[in-house]
Amino acid sequence: MNEKILQIINAHPINTHELRRELSIMNMVDIGAIFDALAKDKTIQIFRLLPKDIAANVFAHIETDKQQIIVEALTDNEVGHIIEGLFSDDAADFIEEMPANVVNRVLRSVSDEKRATINQLLQYPDDSVGSIMTTEYMTLREDFNLIEAFAEIREKKMKGLHTCYIVRRDKLLVGSVTLKTLLLAKEHERIGDIMRPTVISAQTLDDQEKAARLFRKYDLLSLPVVDKEGRMVGIITVDDAVEIVEEETTEDFEKMAAILPTEDPYLKIGVFKHAYKRVGWLLILMLAAIFTELVIADAEDFLARMPVLLVFMPMLMDMGGNVGSQTSTLIIRSMALDEIVFRDVLKVWWREFRVAALCGVLLSVLNALRIIVFNREDDVFFLTLTVSLTLVTVIILSKSLGCLLPMTAKKLRLDPAVLATPIIKTLADVVALVMYFAIAAMLLPGLRG
Amino acid sequence: MNEKILQIINAHPINTHELRRELSIMNMVDIGAIFDALAKDKTIQIFRLLPKDIAANVFAHIETDKQQIIVEALTDNEVGHIIEGLFSDDAADFIEEMPANVVNRVLRSVSDEKRATINQLLQYPDDSVGSIMTTEYMTLREDFNLIEAFAEIREKKMKGLHTCYIVRRDKLLVGSVTLKTLLLAKEHERIGDIMRPTVISAQTLDDQEKAARLFRKYDLLSLPVVDKEGRMVGIITVDDAVEIVEEETTEDFEKMAAILPTEDPYLKIGVFKHAYKRVGWLLILMLAAIFTELVIADAEDFLARMPVLLVFMPMLMDMGGNVGSQTSTLIIRSMALDEIVFRDVLKVWWREFRVAALCGVLLSVLNALRIIVFNREDDVFFLTLTVSLTLVTVIILSKSLGCLLPMTAKKLRLDPAVLATPIIKTLADVVALVMYFAIAAMLLPGLRG
Repeated sequence: MNEKILQIINAHPINTHELRRELSIMNMVDIGAIFDALAKDKTIQIFRLLPKDIAANVFAHIETDKQQIIVEALTDNEVGHIIEGLFSDDAADFIEEMPANVVNRVLRSVSDEKRATINQLLQYPDDSVGSIMTTEYMTLREDFNLIEAFAEIREKKMKGLHTCYIVRRDKLLVGSVTLKTLLLAKEHERIGDIMRPTVISAQTLDDQEKAARLFRKYDLLSLPVVDKEGRMVGIITVDDAVEIVEEETTEDFEKMAAILPTEDPYLKIGVFKHAYKRVGWLLILMLAAIFTELVIADAEDFLARMPVLLVFMPMLMDMGGNVGSQTSTLIIRSMALDEIVFRDVLKVWWREFRVAALCGVLLSVLNALRIIVFNREDDVFFLTLTVSLTLVTVIILSKSLGCLLPMTAKKLRLDPAVLATPIIKTLADVVALVMYFAIAAMLLPGLRG
Repeated sequence: MNEKILQIINAHPINTHELRRELSIMNMVDIGAIFDALAKDKTIQIFRLLPKDIAANVFAHIETDKQQIIVEALTDNEVGHIIEGLFSDDAADFIEEMPANVVNRVLRSVSDEKRATINQLLQYPDDSVGSIMTTEYMTLREDFNLIEAFAEIREKKMKGLHTCYIVRRDKLLVGSVTLKTLLLAKEHERIGDIMRPTVISAQTLDDQEKAARLFRKYDLLSLPVVDKEGRMVGIITVDDAVEIVEEETTEDFEKMAAILPTEDPYLKIGVFKHAYKRVGWLLILMLAAIFTELVIADAEDFLARMPVLLVFMPMLMDMGGNVGSQTSTLIIRSMALDEIVFRDVLKVWWREFRVAALCGVLLSVLNALRIIVFNREDDVFFLTLTVSLTLVTVIILSKSLGCLLPMTAKKLRLDPAVLATPIIKTLADVVALVMYFAIAAMLLPGLRG
């Protein structure tokens, strides 16, 4: 935040004229950020000093706690004015975060039309296209000529407008036209002749991820949303699409790190909620360790006779986990970006198999050299052979699991990210130990018989 | 891809009229995708059938291998026409991917001006704002009235235009105005009076991540780029910003999974390159296992006297890695989204400490119950106590490492994602074993003396 605005705000009394002049050259986002650091009294005081025409716009960029403080301090009339000035998706988001008494007051303060719109938006399922769309969009009719189109645009004064959608009388979406096309067109041309027939749209009940995918694929700035009958009901803007992608990516990061996903930023989540989001998977993984424990318990006698085997256990288990999560991470990310799909599964596995063989042989050789140079055991040859063979096997098996599990999960409409790292790691541990002891039992003379 | 277009393409001879009619209602991205599946001959044949006015636009959406095939088959004249029709950033990207002989031909085929622009763009450092900007943008002068502004816009016919930038005679960027504002303004108004004074811009040598951050913060559709003297030289569009974010996120995923980052999609990378990108970290992690091996070798005698200790080793080591990567993942992602910064470090650590204590106590109690119920050893009480104490300690230490390491790395301008998962896991392994054996030595009667 800039120094000057801070000085103005902290002066006593506040120089209103100077404040407004300073605000007039600032971006709404930066004005919203001023409120982050203000105490309650100051928040209300400064918000009331905002010019009426920017108050709603700034409000949209203030964080939730402060929004609540402001709304509680304003009159019904003032609240109504602000909510009417918000995009309906921002209004719905705001209302979702507020306690019941604030919600009631807010809905009482707005027009019947706005209230109906907000209620409609709140009813769409979480993560659906309907839940993130906004209902402020510009429509034109096919039979408009340019003069009629411009008159309509001037009348509506839509915020942030760059594309107009063409709908029939029954609200059926039939095309789109950008402001640029309108500007370049000639006065007598009909909208129907210069529009681009729209084929790209999403339905209210589609998953929001599908909308985000359309934005990425077609480099869109906005996406029209239609209901089941193809009637236009809203649009999604690119900033909302970017937010969806970021949310979904954060979820993937969290799931791959064995955390239940959450939408709130780190510092906004309390300690108990943080603990709750993490302990579940840890518990499952702890219990899953029973399998490794069984394998080890079974091999105890074995290890007692040849304790040097112990030394390489952690390395082999870690290697399984590491190579497995290398592969699963690449695969999950590539699937999220639509770079690979299920029908590539054999191609991917064959690639992973060869990568695993290359890495496995190289690492085994280096590891063998290391053991031979540093170990002074008698049967160092067979020990080295055991560790090396296990290493190659573990790498191949873990890389195979790392690609087959997430791809199969996706095919079965399960979440690949959830299956990925935690589960693959546990499996890799078990695989590593079982292979290690099996190969040792075959090769090591001290263990035979 | 739709069935109809496939039929048209595979017919012999091709019905050109029908093909063009079909193409006229298709999106450029979808037309570009048709070429993915075509053989070389067919690629060239179909590309030549494209209407001239969309050829360049389609070309931008064709994958690199096919672009090369097409360029090699076209005449210099045709190549020139296509490259002139590309946005200069797309032209530069294309040239970067081509072999020297193709590059020479392409640069020979274009106008002096385009060649100079492309060469300029190619000279900006990788990952700089200059390297991703495009030089096609619309400027207006402050002293224009609306009529002059519209005349200028009609003359330039800029693709995808929604914002015009206002520059002085010395090219100094002073403001911006959207087409919407122009449409709503009155004929006699001067651009200087209706423009929004621009404060948000990036410099050519800024890191591209900084540009992406501005897009996220201010919900921009395009960002003007200026040189060191503040003169306007290009713009970045939101689709490029989205691509940067995706690339950077993919890099984070890869680094956290101990893979050297790469920009190419999974299936475009050969087996040797895949192996090369992964084996480096695996080798380091394998060698880092020497530390755990030393700890185990040191405790061998110890483990021989009390082999039951062995059973819980994998669980404790895994738990350290899991809780550590839970924390480091959350922290790294939150830092990438600017949700936390270095000065939050104590706040974050204190939060993690309490989360760790909560998770640690809960898991220890459950684990203790499990051991008591299922184990029939004599000194099960002390064994349980040892495992439980180790578990709590490991969780607290690993969660502390998981937040302190990435945050410190970021502060030191090292890459937090690289330091994160692989290194924390190795450290967590060592910590787990050292604590386990130390606590066992203190508590277990069988091991004392």
